Amino acid sequence: MNSQALPSRGSTLELFGEIESELQQVEEAIEASLATQDGLVGEVSTYLLRAGGKRIRPALLLLASRFPGRRLGDLIPVAVAVELIHMATLVHDDVVDDSQLRRGRPTVNVRWSNPVSVLTGDYLFARAFSLLAQTGDNRVVRIMADVVFEMSRGELMQIATAFDTGQTEADYFERIARKTGYLIAESCRLGALVAGASPEQVQALYEYGLAVGISFQIADDLLDFTGAAERVGKPVGGDLKQGILTLPVLHALAHSGRAAELHRVIAARSIDDEALARVRTILEEAGSLQYARSRAEEYLARAYAQLEKVPELASRHTLKRIAEFVVNRQF
Amino acid sequence: MNSQALPSRGSTLELFGEIESELQQVEEAIEASLATQDGLVGEVSTYLLRAGGKRIRPALLLLASRFPGRRLGDLIPVAVAVELIHMATLVHDDVVDDSQLRRGRPTVNVRWSNPVSVLTGDYLFARAFSLLAQTGDNRVVRIMADVVFEMSRGELMQIATAFDTGQTEADYFERIARKTGYLIAESCRLGALVAGASPEQVQALYEYGLAVGISFQIADDLLDFTGAAERVGKPVGGDLKQGILTLPVLHALAHSGRAAELHRVIAARSIDDEALARVRTILEEAGSLQYARSRAEEYLARAYAQLEKVPELASRHTLKRIAEFVVNRQF
Repeated sequence: MNSQALPSRGSTLELFGEIESELQQVEEAIEASLATQDGLVGEVSTYLLRAGGKRIRPALLLLASRFPGRRLGDLIPVAVAVELIHMATLVHDDVVDDSQLRRGRPTVNVRWSNPVSVLTGDYLFARAFSLLAQTGDNRVVRIMADVVFEMSRGELMQIATAFDTGQTEADYFERIARKTGYLIAESCRLGALVAGASPEQVQALYEYGLAVGISFQIADDLLDFTGAAERVGKPVGGDLKQGILTLPVLHALAHSGRAAELHRVIAARSIDDEALARVRTILEEAGSLQYARSRAEEYLARAYAQLEKVPELASRHTLKRIAEFVVNRQF
Repeated sequence: MNSQALPSRGSTLELFGEIESELQQVEEAIEASLATQDGLVGEVSTYLLRAGGKRIRPALLLLASRFPGRRLGDLIPVAVAVELIHMATLVHDDVVDDSQLRRGRPTVNVRWSNPVSVLTGDYLFARAFSLLAQTGDNRVVRIMADVVFEMSRGELMQIATAFDTGQTEADYFERIARKTGYLIAESCRLGALVAGASPEQVQALYEYGLAVGISFQIADDLLDFTGAAERVGKPVGGDLKQGILTLPVLHALAHSGRAAELHRVIAARSIDDEALARVRTILEEAGSLQYARSRAEEYLARAYAQLEKVPELASRHTLKRIAEFVVNRQF
């Protein structure tokens, strides 16, 4: 999953200003949830906590909860569980992708080993579901179980379709909804739901989150072609080298005059920097990067439209700015 | 985890006779829970289902539920979830242990890859928690989340203490309770709990399951020294070669006149067949195998004692025979 590239701490801190003290409570509750006596478990937990993270999902959950009459005490454990689930998926994804670095530090699989990563992810998932069960609200357990289910299916789809030039744009949108969209959407839904918002308000915030998540992932996938490695924090062209075909590539396969050449480059399953430069030229000539950018903006507009439905939400202007920021960042 | 070596299908079928039709319903519900359209997800699910399994945890759950007035419809989804969680831990453990074979077939990590195993395990965990949440009974969600938490901690402890001759018998018992005992204990607890048994009855069945699980794991660990490879279905001495120090070894380290020699063999971290034979002699001379056997029997007696507390349970004689069978098998 590419979601490590969400906005950097500095910029989000400003956007999260209105919930700063609430996020601090979430942070303390995350630490408390991982406090343990065990040697190795304690070491890995501390390592993950020190690595930080932008806590964007808890932040969205809290921002989506700012309806009159909400009770913060009900929201904090759910926000913690959402972040623990996110951490678990990152730790497992680093095994899946054989990643070496996350947030500028060696991944758990590098610092310890794949076995430690697998078990740490399980440990984090279990902790999250324990917290969710303790809320006594079965809806939140079911929502989060289903989202983990969809995320693992999305990642399996990504493995199954590596280098597969037969996949469609619809496949792409289904895949990114699963791997990125649903967790953000459900974070927003849970905030509104636990705050006691109406079904229409809850649905609007779910749709907002889904649109933001999809828009973010399209933008993130674009950076794989247009970003500078040192700013993105991962090698440019990495997706394509791994066989992950993103929206610009699928667009060019369907619409470029050089589609056959693109097909051959991908089918060879060994993409070096020279091949990558050729692909980039094909994408530019076919307007595929511009097309993907326009689709990201389309989803951004959808996110805005959903916010129009919740005038009662104190934080909706902040949510609008977050959506814009997430999609338009250049790193 | 070594739990693949639980009693073979032929013998358990006879012991499970009184719940045969119920287990058939569990089997169908497991299949239904994994039915999916996705290519790769579908393939892996079918592969796992065809590999079978003895469904001993669902069987214990059902046997522990046979109090008057139980509703089978409430029990089936919980029994399915317990088995899905067990399957998830096996798939992840095969990555952790780099296992090649399970139930005589290539493991998922061998047939596909480690990434597919990691995600399939997550998928199975998520499916299980979704089913548990659907019961509307938060107690079952919390119990199972906590047991997954303890199992992952137990496996991490096992990694952390590999080749560590400083660990105690108490560490060993804590570790095997986590990696094997709690899931069996909670399966029994959930059967009684969902059937509406009294707190005392529920507790007795939990204690029964915990004693059976610990007794089983001691016996299974003994087979690593005394079993024949072709009957046990895994290489003899495998635990020690991996650095997993089991009860006989810890006993000998504390009580053998040749403890220093044993310590040196283990500290060398490279145990060949000649070293293994030497270790076995040390264990025999120190009475360590006999000691471990007596501890297994002690836990077996504890399991029996718990069953005395539930005379109302129709299946308690079957539970007694299962406990005996599990601990006294020679393969």
